[in-house]
Amino acid sequence: MEIGKVIGNVWATKKDEGISGQKLLVVNIMKNRQQKKDSLLVAADITGAGIGDLVLVSKGNSARQAVGDARIPVDAAIIGIIDSLELQESDSKEDGGT
Amino acid sequence: MEIGKVIGNVWATKKDEGISGQKLLVVNIMKNRQQKKDSLLVAADITGAGIGDLVLVSKGNSARQAVGDARIPVDAAIIGIIDSLELQESDSKEDGGT
Amino acid sequence: MEIGKVIGNVWATKKDEGISGQKLLVVNIMKNRQQKKDSLLVAADITGAGIGDLVLVSKGNSARQAVGDARIPVDAAIIGIIDSLELQESDSKEDGGT
Amino acid sequence: MEIGKVIGNVWATKKDEGISGQKLLVVNIMKNRQQKKDSLLVAADITGAGIGDLVLVSKGNSARQAVGDARIPVDAAIIGIIDSLELQESDSKEDGGT
Amino acid sequence: MEIGKVIGNVWATKKDEGISGQKLLVVNIMKNRQQKKDSLLVAADITGAGIGDLVLVSKGNSARQAVGDARIPVDAAIIGIIDSLELQESDSKEDGGT
Repeated sequence: MEIGKVIGNVWATKKDEGISGQKLLVVNIMKNRQQKKDSLLVAADITGAGIGDLVLVSKGNSARQAVGDARIPVDAAIIGIIDSLELQESDSKEDGGT
Repeated sequence: MEIGKVIGNVWATKKDEGISGQKLLVVNIMKNRQQKKDSLLVAADITGAGIGDLVLVSKGNSARQAVGDARIPVDAAIIGIIDSLELQESDSKEDGGT
Repeated sequence: MEIGKVIGNVWATKKDEGISGQKLLVVNIMKNRQQKKDSLLVAADITGAGIGDLVLVSKGNSARQAVGDARIPVDAAIIGIIDSLELQESDSKEDGGT
Repeated sequence: MEIGKVIGNVWATKKDEGISGQKLLVVNIMKNRQQKKDSLLVAADITGAGIGDLVLVSKGNSARQAVGDARIPVDAAIIGIIDSLELQESDSKEDGGT
Repeated sequence: MEIGKVIGNVWATKKDEGISGQKLLVVNIMKNRQQKKDSLLVAADITGAGIGDLVLVSKGNSARQAVGDARIPVDAAIIGIIDSLELQESDSKEDGGT
């Protein structure tokens, strides 16, 4: 999985019926604790995440498992809101999203 | 999923029968709101998107779900035309495709 | 899918039986109309493509669909020879492969 | 598979039920023997790996095979703790994780 | 598939039972005929490849097909030892691995 920060929302009226009802959040994937990758990812959210949250993103078929129906044509899903992230470099425990 | 801008069309007479009848659009994937990634992606379109539209692209097996038949050998599909994209950086709501 | 230019052939005597009989072409994936990505891709070809052709490449499970047997362990396949590619930047229609 | 170094732990209370009980480790993927890629990967661990261990990471559907249940929506799993890595450049046999 | 050069071996005692008995080789993926990508890939080998060999690597579910059992959690496999690689740029036929 990847670690990302939720930075926005996206809406699409004309879309595949399969994704109707899916809440779609825009996520920036983190390269490390401070820096984001220069790419935008849209993930279906099943955890109630919001803007600013640090989240766990799963991609590929696993994303379709997460939304509970393999026919739903998503390829990325938020599967967790990170409470805390303990990384060896900084040796300090940091709460997710603060 | 990724966010992309439709920039063109591609035609192929000699092709896998499985993709006959599929409308294939050329999409530039967006790195962020202003910049495109330096790569071309071809996606099957089921939403009626056109040149200049900002679209949602799903890849891998999810793309085959989107076109409705897992035997169709596409690996990318447009699953939505973006109406609006609200990103935290700019804090301004921007209509898709303008 | 990705757009690539066929630049060569590859032969392997000692190989997985599953790919015996598969024609394997070396493809450079295009970043944009003029530039190639700095990476080599080998794809099974089912369309009769040849060196210099601009082709459509599908990857992952879709490639196994294209070669007609999910047990064949290829992860990339040429699924079309591009006749023409119409991109918004250049606003000019260009024949594939010239 | 990729070679990575375990650098931390991640916890998420609000998460997909499917990943409850999974031990999630943060891994830096190695570019070569000395350098890490500038990206963070979170992998489910089934081998008992710990911080500082050099590990084998498998991604995609294979990760769901490793955790023993294809419904668990992980897309990366640690499938081995590396004892030793023998690379031609250095021509010297080096124990994993030292 | 990708073209890579075998540069080493990796051993792991503590590992997923599913990969017991799999011969794991470290491969550098080639960007072009001369240059390697700056990343290490570990692939299950079923062809008898050795250090210095130029090989064909298949990734994802295709790798599990190559090792003959979809429950084996590998995501990359060597599916051929390249005898010769004919690339248009150099217009010269070059034996693999020399």
